[in-house]
Amino acid sequence: MDVIRTTDEMQQISRAGKRAGRRIGLVPTMGCLHEGHLSLVRLAREKADVVVVSIFVNPIQFLPGEDFAAYPRPYGEDETLCREAGVDVLFYPEASAMYVPGHSVTVEERNLSRGLCGASRPGHFSGVTTVVAKLFNIVLPDVAIFGQKDAQQARIILRMVRDLNIPVAIVLGPIVREKDGLAMSSRNRYLSPPERREALCLYRSLREAERMVGEGERSVETIRAAMTAIINAMPLARMDYLEFVDDRTLLPVARIGGPVLVAVAVKFGKTRLIDNIVLTSA
Amino acid sequence: MDVIRTTDEMQQISRAGKRAGRRIGLVPTMGCLHEGHLSLVRLAREKADVVVVSIFVNPIQFLPGEDFAAYPRPYGEDETLCREAGVDVLFYPEASAMYVPGHSVTVEERNLSRGLCGASRPGHFSGVTTVVAKLFNIVLPDVAIFGQKDAQQARIILRMVRDLNIPVAIVLGPIVREKDGLAMSSRNRYLSPPERREALCLYRSLREAERMVGEGERSVETIRAAMTAIINAMPLARMDYLEFVDDRTLLPVARIGGPVLVAVAVKFGKTRLIDNIVLTSA
Repeated sequence: MDVIRTTDEMQQISRAGKRAGRRIGLVPTMGCLHEGHLSLVRLAREKADVVVVSIFVNPIQFLPGEDFAAYPRPYGEDETLCREAGVDVLFYPEASAMYVPGHSVTVEERNLSRGLCGASRPGHFSGVTTVVAKLFNIVLPDVAIFGQKDAQQARIILRMVRDLNIPVAIVLGPIVREKDGLAMSSRNRYLSPPERREALCLYRSLREAERMVGEGERSVETIRAAMTAIINAMPLARMDYLEFVDDRTLLPVARIGGPVLVAVAVKFGKTRLIDNIVLTSA
Repeated sequence: MDVIRTTDEMQQISRAGKRAGRRIGLVPTMGCLHEGHLSLVRLAREKADVVVVSIFVNPIQFLPGEDFAAYPRPYGEDETLCREAGVDVLFYPEASAMYVPGHSVTVEERNLSRGLCGASRPGHFSGVTTVVAKLFNIVLPDVAIFGQKDAQQARIILRMVRDLNIPVAIVLGPIVREKDGLAMSSRNRYLSPPERREALCLYRSLREAERMVGEGERSVETIRAAMTAIINAMPLARMDYLEFVDDRTLLPVARIGGPVLVAVAVKFGKTRLIDNIVLTSA
């Protein structure tokens, strides 16, 4: 496995790979890798000849007061996990290589970014689209793999690729969960043992929504009340949002019809967890 | 010469060219081609194996009330000029192919875009960076050629390429002028005969600045006064701006030292003309 630290060297490797006719697959990450990331690496392996994982804790997608400085960076473990997973190239740039002094260009999505996490974290998705556009230009992938866990992010990336005609195929990997159902996240390690137990309320509330729709319930109001009750029963949980939106437009819906993204964000102390499910009445 | 109307077909042609090891050169235009554009095509021919000219009157870089609808579109003449110039591919997309309904992603430059034409035409450069990013992703050029006539645009494109790590080399072609010195522009055809005569004041004022600096003048205030007098002596001319800015940062300067971009914009009726020169004290 090659570990690459500069954007120039990464671009050269990718160009050489492409000239040799190899398909390049990219899994962009912020490190602190877990089984969710590794499932995306396996998907990349299926779709490409050369698998590149990027590890970059992107400063511009964190808001002031968020956990940028504290975000876990267990680089040694991440490198080992990538080697064991058969990653070909680990792209691990320094922040100074990614953002030169005076950088002044961003990529903005102005529609899908407004609600959900975009409402709680204004400016977050501008940082995401900008860094992903940069990573696409540096790594030049044929295919890039993102996780369904970050559902809004995935839909914004798909929109960016469409609207800027970016020649990269996007593949979404399903949410990977702990045995008890908690969606895997690098931020789970922030949780105290009691918070960790209560954190299961996200998954339990989504399962309850799925069960209700399966039994014929179509009213968002009714399902929302049941989910809210599950989450609010947890003493340490503070709801950030619970939204029912059209899976394509991310606009709120009142009834379960075509695909509806049910997305939930809950805070435990300073730790903010998200989870989601897509439900249809079919 | 192939004339290509869809983004998919253009991308396929470019991918095939790259696989065959050919260097692709792009000259992005809004059509209404003149000798200025054709000089850029010759530069592209020197730098690349496959020369692509795009013709697209980009709606999102025009402000409400500007000349989008009236902008000249002499497509037949443009196609002939491209054939005669040895262009390999003419990319001539429909607006509906470039902007699908609900498009919501733009590329924004927030620093160099503020002054000069950006102050007179707020939002204009957002339209430019967005469409150029799209054209780069569609045509996949190794090199793209822009004119020095649109000096601010050229510097913003260079900044975009740097900040988004876009794998395209940018080459700037010098300003091409009519015999009497007027910078060539698709908008010159809007001018009435008296306006056309007076329009020479832009070039004459820039030449005067060059002469003064050549004779040792360093004060921007003194040079500005002389240039303003030349322009204001024209009854039909209305100054839009006359700026002396650092050629790299586009921030105003008070004295001629390192490279200074002297940029002028003058309106004749509804027609807005721009011109510029780079001066140094060396």
